[in-house]
Formats: sequence, C-alpha cells, structure tokens
Amino acid sequence: MQGNTLTRLTLALDAMGGDFGPCVTVPAALQALASNPALNLLLVGDPAAITPLLAKIDSDLLSRLEIVPAESVIASDARPSQAIRASRGTSMRIALELIKDGRAQACVSAGNTGALMGLAKLLIKPLEGIERPALVSVLPHQQHGKTVVLDLGANVDCDSTMLVQFAVMGSVMAEEVLGLTNPRVALLNIGEEENKGLNTIREAAAQLKAAPSINYIGYLEGNDLLTGKTDVMVCDGFVGNVTLKTVEGVVRMFLSLLKSPTSGPEQKQKRSWWLKWLGRLLQKRLSKRFGHLNPDQYNGACLLGLRGTVIKSHGAANQKAFAVAIEQAMQTVRRQLPERIAARLEAVLPKSD
Amino acid sequence: MQGNTLTRLTLALDAMGGDFGPCVTVPAALQALASNPALNLLLVGDPAAITPLLAKIDSDLLSRLEIVPAESVIASDARPSQAIRASRGTSMRIALELIKDGRAQACVSAGNTGALMGLAKLLIKPLEGIERPALVSVLPHQQHGKTVVLDLGANVDCDSTMLVQFAVMGSVMAEEVLGLTNPRVALLNIGEEENKGLNTIREAAAQLKAAPSINYIGYLEGNDLLTGKTDVMVCDGFVGNVTLKTVEGVVRMFLSLLKSPTSGPEQKQKRSWWLKWLGRLLQKRLSKRFGHLNPDQYNGACLLGLRGTVIKSHGAANQKAFAVAIEQAMQTVRRQLPERIAARLEAVLPKSD
Repeated sequence: MQGNTLTRLTLALDAMGGDFGPCVTVPAALQALASNPALNLLLVGDPAAITPLLAKIDSDLLSRLEIVPAESVIASDARPSQAIRASRGTSMRIALELIKDGRAQACVSAGNTGALMGLAKLLIKPLEGIERPALVSVLPHQQHGKTVVLDLGANVDCDSTMLVQFAVMGSVMAEEVLGLTNPRVALLNIGEEENKGLNTIREAAAQLKAAPSINYIGYLEGNDLLTGKTDVMVCDGFVGNVTLKTVEGVVRMFLSLLKSPTSGPEQKQKRSWWLKWLGRLLQKRLSKRFGHLNPDQYNGACLLGLRGTVIKSHGAANQKAFAVAIEQAMQTVRRQLPERIAARLEAVLPKSD
Repeated sequence: MQGNTLTRLTLALDAMGGDFGPCVTVPAALQALASNPALNLLLVGDPAAITPLLAKIDSDLLSRLEIVPAESVIASDARPSQAIRASRGTSMRIALELIKDGRAQACVSAGNTGALMGLAKLLIKPLEGIERPALVSVLPHQQHGKTVVLDLGANVDCDSTMLVQFAVMGSVMAEEVLGLTNPRVALLNIGEEENKGLNTIREAAAQLKAAPSINYIGYLEGNDLLTGKTDVMVCDGFVGNVTLKTVEGVVRMFLSLLKSPTSGPEQKQKRSWWLKWLGRLLQKRLSKRFGHLNPDQYNGACLLGLRGTVIKSHGAANQKAFAVAIEQAMQTVRRQLPERIAARLEAVLPKSD
C-alpha cells in the first residue's frame, strides 16, 4: 500500500519449507511483491522447482525477485539436533545465512520449527540477556483488538527467567506492533488465585510484580485467551503450542460447519431456490463476521529475541496464509522490533547474573 | 427417563459449593429429582440457605430429598492444603463422608477443585495401582461422537506412570460410557512425530506401545481435540485444564457472536421486519446446530481412579449445567465405573513395582 514511500526491503524466503513447498511459497511471494512495490525477495531453493512457477510473470515482479539455489531441504519431521548438524546447503540454513551476511533483512520459513529455532540461534544469535528466543503471534480477540501470545512452541521446557524474558519481549511487541501504551501482561495459568499452577509460573509472577516497567496484571485462564482481558499472554512453549492449535481447531470447526448448512447431499436437493439463496447470503454474512478469526489471517509467528527477524509460517499454510507471514516479516523489520527489544531488555533485566 | 425400572440411587450434593451456592444447586437438584423418579438426594449445607428454596415444592420431590446440615464452606480460592486441614464440618467434606459411610453412592460438588481432589483421596481412597485420581470429561466432537479427555486439572505435575494410568482409566471410560470396543487412545503433544514434546510424554508413549490391552494410536495435537481422531486424549492436568478452558472460551465467543447479529443498536432499528425475522430463524437454526458444543451440555468432570464416584462441576455452572453434573454422577454409578476400572487396572498395570 504505502510501499512507495518506504525504503526498500529485502527478505529471504525458504521456498522449499512447509507441507507444500514452492507450490505455496512462490505464488505467495508473487502476491507479496505485487502488493508491496518496495519489496525485494530472495527465493531460496531448488531452481528446477521454482522456475516453472515463474512463467508468464510481470517483468516488474521478476526484477525484484532472485532465486538463490539450495541443494536440499530439512524434512518437517526431522529431529532438530540431527537436522541442524546436517543443515549445510539446505534452503532454511541458506535463507538464514542471507540475513547474517546482510543480504536480507529478514527470513520467512514454513519448515521444521525446532531446526529453525536452533539454526536461528546459531546463525543470527540471541539478544544480550535472552537465553532462548520465543515464537510469538498476535491473535485477534473478541473486543476487536489483539493479544500478543508467547511462547508458541520454540521452548518446550521453560524456567521462570525465560517466562519473564518472554513477558518483556511480548510487552515491547504490544507497544510496537499494536501501538499500545503500557500494555497489560498476564501469565496463562489454571486459576486466577496466587497459589495456583506450576512453581515456575509462581516464581515468574513474583519477578514480574517486582519489574516496574512491566504492567503485570496476574494470572488468566485459557478461556480468557480471546476475551481481550490482556494485551500479552505469556506461557511455556508446550502449553502455548497446544493452546494455539486448540483455538485453531475450534475456529476451523465452526467455520466449516458454517460453510455446510446441510448435513447431507440428499437434503441439499430437497431445498428450494430461495432457501439456497438465503443460505449463501447467510454464509457470506457469517464469514465476514468470523473471518478475522480465521487462522490464515494471523499466520506467521515471529521468532523474537534474536538479533534479526525470523518468521515461522505454519507448515500447512496455504498461499494466502504464507503471504500474511511475508507481510509479518516486513512489519517486524520496519518497526525495528529486535532493536527495540534489545533496548528494553537492557533497562529491565538484571545485568549478567 | 427409565428411572422407574432402575434400582434406587442416592447422591450427596455439596449444596454450598460453586460461585452461586444453593441458588444454583437447589433448583438443579429439584430438576434432577423431577426427571429421575429413582433418585434420592442429600443436600449438604446450611439449612437456613437451602430451606427457603424448597417452598412450594411438590411433596413427591420433597420426600426424596434430605438436608444434611453443614456449618461451613470451603472457599473457592482457598489454598487446598489449608482448606483440607480445616475441612471438618464443611459441606464438601460431609458430602464425601456420606459416600464413605455408605449413605450416598456418589457426590457432586462445584467447589474448590484442589480441596475436592485432596479430600476425596483422603476419604474415598484411590484404587489399587492408582497414584492420583484424574479429572475426566467427555467432549463432543465434529464427527457427532465423543472424546474422553483427561486429566483436566487434578494433577498439575504428571510423570509418565500417571499418564499411563490415565490412559487405562480413559480407555475403560470410553468403553463403558461411550460404548466403544477397543477405543483409540492418544497422547496430546505438540507434534505427531515420535521425537516431539516433553520427556514424560515420550516415556508414556513407550509404555503405552507395550501395553497390549490399550489401543494406543500415537500423539495428536491441540487441533485434533474435536476432530474425533481419537476416543481418549491423555495429557497432564495443567495442559488439560488450559486446553478445556480454551475450547470453552472459543465456543462461548462463537455462540455469543451468533446471538448478536448486529454490531450496535442503531443498526437494529434500521432493519426491516423480515430481516429481523430472518435473523431469529437463523439464530435458532445455528443454536440447534452448535448447541451440543455448549460447555453447559457437558458440565461435570468425573474424579476417576477412586473407590467411589465424585463429580466436579464447573464453579460457574448454572442450574442447567449443574443438573447435567448430577446426571453424570448417576450414570457413573449405574455403569459401575470405579469397579470396572479397578478390574482393568489389575490386568494392565504392573504389580507393586
């Protein structure tokens, strides 16, 4: 939209990652180039798989796109530690190296989460004061606002210090991306009383209460994820991943039920034309109403806490969803999130203890 | 319905527990008595709070109802360990003691979960081979069937042995309550590959694979909770509680959005009569379609693994939901779940190791 007035921006895409590889990533890349004139893209992957998808493409788009060859791909189900050891020459690693070498300002991949996390930590390095980066996403809530949720699966085991670091990163993200002043931060727990939940959560609560720059509001439960009671929801990566996928599952189930107003084909034939028309009208209305909750609309979790921008797309993302992840990467770079988080961490976290 | 043909059944209700106390539990009790002629209820609580709610009640119902006085109530936000120490004379403890004394066959409470768990373990005792009971619920899924989910919050920290015990209990529940043969059992995890997730989950997977009487099908993710891919979903109490509440939150949000088709009152006035009529028609249709997903319809988690039946109702349950919990208790007793689980455990679990 406002691309022309902005400085140029180059992103590296792991074109081979995800369940569908170039069939999804290349059309999504072209879609992003078409709507962002200031964008350049480096498509990392197998030229033989990518090139055929670029036939009949507008020369303007083609001029802002470059294929960076990669020999291999990290499998989605590979064990991260093994995948990282054997990562030389893979599309994911080369995409990350393009950031390291200063050729790209961010990278987007729909590949193996664990490998992306590990390689990003290795190549891009965590910010001073951050033990491990976290996967962050911004979910729409009931009050027409948004909630920053982290960690969504980068760290299966988290201690209280990590949860506090996540709270700081989430808070900066809410300020920069959602434009909120003094965003509310909550810990996801199984009750709102102070004595509830796991030890790590209670310890993190004590630390957050003592942190003057964090607007910590206490514990919230799973049912408050979409109510808008908090701007930042902090949890460990296991709980966050299960929770996010649960939300997606329920939303997709509702959307699919809305799309199929009859229970079987025999019923469909019996319906009169005006009922069918009504059904379509209704479906359109409801899709509009619930569309913002569609998981595709908020695809792209940011790997926060690194010295650069890495966006993880859902492995099963379709073209639209992968294009949303590319937009996420652009916004994260433009808002200088890593730099701002680094500055905030210095103010909040205790020095080298 | 078929109450007359069944033997008599007596349940103890903690009339004081939950967010609304007797205002919800007493009308729900009367509702349950009216629809189950073979049911007797012991209402445990403050007679001064309960009696006024029994005015103008049919004498048949009144004859099947008895008030068992209790001096005090365990607060919902009390620390369980303290609450248990000071539990003598509370409605929850007396309701449980009625089972122990053989006066009631089951107990229903909407009170403090931790205290109910602790007191039940103390008074009713776990089955041979069970370390800690688990909270179990049966959730409706997309394929018009149901899934047994546990643990929903009784055990915040779980080791692999506990997860295996939950799998056994869930499997028996699926057979007895859902009428399934060889029910599928899955572990809730953050990926379907073997190397994913927490150590305890991977250890439990290895044990379940080796258990011939369990139809273990592997890991499933949060988005599969409602797809019907499994009959039993096993997780620790922290994850289960957050997940269940997340599902409830999303479902309630959808149901509330469906109930308010306009975004503001000014839009309402502008709409013509036929649009309003259409809106109501639609709303009715959708409520019918999604009604079975309403959390009120499956209120009442069973505390499984005890030598008796204890049902935990949601603290915020309304009359309808609390009545569902009473029905749950009746079903659990009639199906002799504790006895059947005990028999199965003997066959599955290793003897005293």
